[in-house]
Amino acid sequence: MSDSEGDSRRPPSPLGALNTDDNAFPEDTFRILVATDNHIGYNERDPIRGQDSINTFREILQLAVKHDVDFILLAGDLFHENRPSRDTLYQTLALLREYTLGDRPIQIELLSDPQEGKAAGFSFPAVNYEDPNLNVSIPVFSIHGNHDDPQGAGPQGALCALDMLSVSGLINYMGKFDLPIDDAEAQNTGIAIKPVLLRKGNSKLALYGVGNVKDQRMHFELRSNRVRMFMPKDKNKWFNILLLHQNRVPHGPQQSVPEGMFDNSLDLVIWGHEHDCRISPEIVAGKRYRICQPGSSVATSLGEGESIEKCVALLEVQDKEYRMTPIPLRTVRPFVVDDVCLEVAAEKEGFDLGDKMAITKFLKKKVEQLIVRANEQWDERNAKAVAEGETELPRMLPLIRLKVDTTGVSEMSNPVRFGQEFQGRLANPRDVLVFHRAKRSNKSGGKVTTDEPELSIDDPSLTTAEKLARVRVHTLVHEYLAAQEMQLLGEAGMSDAIELFVDKDDTHAIESHVQVALKALMKGVQKKGRRVRRGRPGGYR
Amino acid sequence: MSDSEGDSRRPPSPLGALNTDDNAFPEDTFRILVATDNHIGYNERDPIRGQDSINTFREILQLAVKHDVDFILLAGDLFHENRPSRDTLYQTLALLREYTLGDRPIQIELLSDPQEGKAAGFSFPAVNYEDPNLNVSIPVFSIHGNHDDPQGAGPQGALCALDMLSVSGLINYMGKFDLPIDDAEAQNTGIAIKPVLLRKGNSKLALYGVGNVKDQRMHFELRSNRVRMFMPKDKNKWFNILLLHQNRVPHGPQQSVPEGMFDNSLDLVIWGHEHDCRISPEIVAGKRYRICQPGSSVATSLGEGESIEKCVALLEVQDKEYRMTPIPLRTVRPFVVDDVCLEVAAEKEGFDLGDKMAITKFLKKKVEQLIVRANEQWDERNAKAVAEGETELPRMLPLIRLKVDTTGVSEMSNPVRFGQEFQGRLANPRDVLVFHRAKRSNKSGGKVTTDEPELSIDDPSLTTAEKLARVRVHTLVHEYLAAQEMQLLGEAGMSDAIELFVDKDDTHAIESHVQVALKALMKGVQKKGRRVRRGRPGGYR
Repeated sequence: MSDSEGDSRRPPSPLGALNTDDNAFPEDTFRILVATDNHIGYNERDPIRGQDSINTFREILQLAVKHDVDFILLAGDLFHENRPSRDTLYQTLALLREYTLGDRPIQIELLSDPQEGKAAGFSFPAVNYEDPNLNVSIPVFSIHGNHDDPQGAGPQGALCALDMLSVSGLINYMGKFDLPIDDAEAQNTGIAIKPVLLRKGNSKLALYGVGNVKDQRMHFELRSNRVRMFMPKDKNKWFNILLLHQNRVPHGPQQSVPEGMFDNSLDLVIWGHEHDCRISPEIVAGKRYRICQPGSSVATSLGEGESIEKCVALLEVQDKEYRMTPIPLRTVRPFVVDDVCLEVAAEKEGFDLGDKMAITKFLKKKVEQLIVRANEQWDERNAKAVAEGETELPRMLPLIRLKVDTTGVSEMSNPVRFGQEFQGRLANPRDVLVFHRAKRSNKSGGKVTTDEPELSIDDPSLTTAEKLARVRVHTLVHEYLAAQEMQLLGEAGMSDAIELFVDKDDTHAIESHVQVALKALMKGVQKKGRRVRRGRPGGYR
Repeated sequence: MSDSEGDSRRPPSPLGALNTDDNAFPEDTFRILVATDNHIGYNERDPIRGQDSINTFREILQLAVKHDVDFILLAGDLFHENRPSRDTLYQTLALLREYTLGDRPIQIELLSDPQEGKAAGFSFPAVNYEDPNLNVSIPVFSIHGNHDDPQGAGPQGALCALDMLSVSGLINYMGKFDLPIDDAEAQNTGIAIKPVLLRKGNSKLALYGVGNVKDQRMHFELRSNRVRMFMPKDKNKWFNILLLHQNRVPHGPQQSVPEGMFDNSLDLVIWGHEHDCRISPEIVAGKRYRICQPGSSVATSLGEGESIEKCVALLEVQDKEYRMTPIPLRTVRPFVVDDVCLEVAAEKEGFDLGDKMAITKFLKKKVEQLIVRANEQWDERNAKAVAEGETELPRMLPLIRLKVDTTGVSEMSNPVRFGQEFQGRLANPRDVLVFHRAKRSNKSGGKVTTDEPELSIDDPSLTTAEKLARVRVHTLVHEYLAAQEMQLLGEAGMSDAIELFVDKDDTHAIESHVQVALKALMKGVQKKGRRVRRGRPGGYR
């Protein structure tokens, strides 16, 4: 997808290179609030953390107002659930109405077709601030992520939660391209990306949104040179931003998208999906563009990446120059993660690995230290903000995760009961501890096994969580269909259907798959029947 | 709830008594489009009928535009499913945005508080045309029905699908009062109804909305004089409309709301829920007010009431005078229902009740006649509209229902297979026929049994549908809890929870009930424990 050109192909300016004072050319400078992976609705039934995601989304909208941005740019997974709860949808709609409608005049001009991507059969435009019936102050542009991707095949095609916001006029949903029904169709389609073209004064900005698809497909499309970006003829006079939501960290062959595979006319790639906050644009070897990874605004796992301070960014763009300024989020719960190896600790601290009480005492001390550290983090952040004139926020209970290597310990006490002691002092008492063991060597020769059988869940040395983590839907489906002698229904399709049913709350996924599979089967049988001249031409009853 | 006053208590003018030309006092005349029970999303996965409800809702909005109404009034069950599908919600949002936003100036002035009923914690008003950020042309006011009533208890309280439309600024949801958590609380609350007060020129209109509650509760509240209507002091100078959504037809003791129980200051009651179209306001014995029952805009059952021609109404109100003009809906599928007794027919037509072929032939002839009748209905309605200058609509496949009394017939052919012959000629081939038998006399004395045991589903003379109709959730729950020795969980609550789970798609209903029941149980046990001085005061672990 790379191309080569002359002088105008100089790389865009790196972070902070917008060599103008803040107010030098304000009428030519786009001010954009960049955020992603807000995961609204995450853990919403948790009595402590239930409102975290929505509260931080409110903070982000307030920051957009405070920093007087021209628009907000989101890179997917606005919602955690594919079908957000009523409460989540209600609060999101209300917040968008509260903070993005109003009298602030829009200073960005839409140069692309406002009808591009509009609701079929209706007259209102796809871009909300072009609708004369809505008084939009801060447009929000967003692609979908893997959590809130389009599903179903009703009269309006596949729909996602962002479509509800978009048809209400509260966001501008971009980067949706028709999802192929099966792989054969995908092979013929490719991915076509039409940009949203914006002008502010003399600066021109092109937004290329690509909603999430399976990494394998994206990888294939990029490799096959079938991602077609409809760029303006004078593309080098535009500041070109690509928005995408895919794995950046490799999770296996074709399970991620390589950083260097995009069109070299791009200036900046805003990468959603990865939750670690890496806002400063990073260089890509051999490419002009840099990658900005804003990270999530709420921790949805208690892994290390989520413990990096969470920020959104103010992106300023003037002509081909830009500056990316991180803005720390103040409503994010402090989170400290650490690990400890009991064998090492026992030696160092002088306790016995068989002494459950001593182990518990040691772990409590560790957790106490982490709570102190987390509270210090909060206080520091809060003090800094207060010094800058912000209001003080009441301290939030921290998230604490201690990973414990239990190798050599025969019996551990119950981690849920352990957490009860910390009730009221941390936000996740039920899962503050996780246990793991160093992998044991294979009995047949001492080699470390890497390809463990996927259903080896009877191994008594595994914890329940480890056992569950090893179960793969497709293996279960394979075994079930074999047991029922129903392999004709198609394993791969059935696995996908079950995943849709579970992950996307698509209650009709299995029914639809069976119907399609049976139809295909019937067709196949009929063809065969005709071929051997034994079938009834009119089909089977 | 009745009161007595003097001269000003004359009954409001009956239908057609608005003794003015259409244009005599237009600036004083409210023009209101009245509709109800649109049941959007009904049968949406049916390949033939799937889009019926949404198409007719579109027609209703178009009629509102055509008749240049000041607002639209809906009396509940806008949605068929408590949690409408994404497709349904999307299309409804789009239609409301398309037809109710625009430049048409609003001529009605809101005199009540625009903040009344607004979203907690947000600044935008509850009434959409008071929001300066929205350009509303035709406000829509609606109560909820029994299908789309509020559920759940999140941070925003119980929410329903109308809340999503309301928070988006596309409808004005009224008649929501806090639902009591249990009956004890209900006993203390009563129902408080605050009106929406509107003025157009010299006419003043008060809208009293009461969203659906269980009939038993509504009956109790009315009987106990605890439905408090907050009426203006000069209430007799207002035209007072009550909007409600309850059973009007008695379904057992306290399973409906008596027509004569409302405040006699009312001028008109608009009654949702009942699907028969009875638009002409009907007199209520001993009362000033009349009742208008618009009926549903889509047939959700194939009963006789649904075969009455479906209309919406143009309600004109000037001072205390009003006129109600029915407007037939053109997109409603023609529906003809009839019944036949095979014993009688066999005698008359001279066929044998044991001759399956002859019976089938006879029933086919009957269905053919009904199709002809339905198509004639459509053509007549269409021709009339065309004569009035409307465009011609392509004929829709009709709904046909033939109820067959099979008493004395030992074996009937399969009604689904029967319908296959009519594929492409009617909209409901799978259920065109329903069979029933005259009730057999009770063996023990010839009396007709009225109290049949509810689980008598092993009777071989019953059809599957009849068997299923007899199963009651609470009976199943009773038997299940007894079998599991779990009666402590509370039968009534568990029945309700299961109904919520099934009818309202509330996936957390059972979990919530069990939690509440267990907590109550614990409390009870603790109290008892303290009383006999054996319990630990700190509670149980």
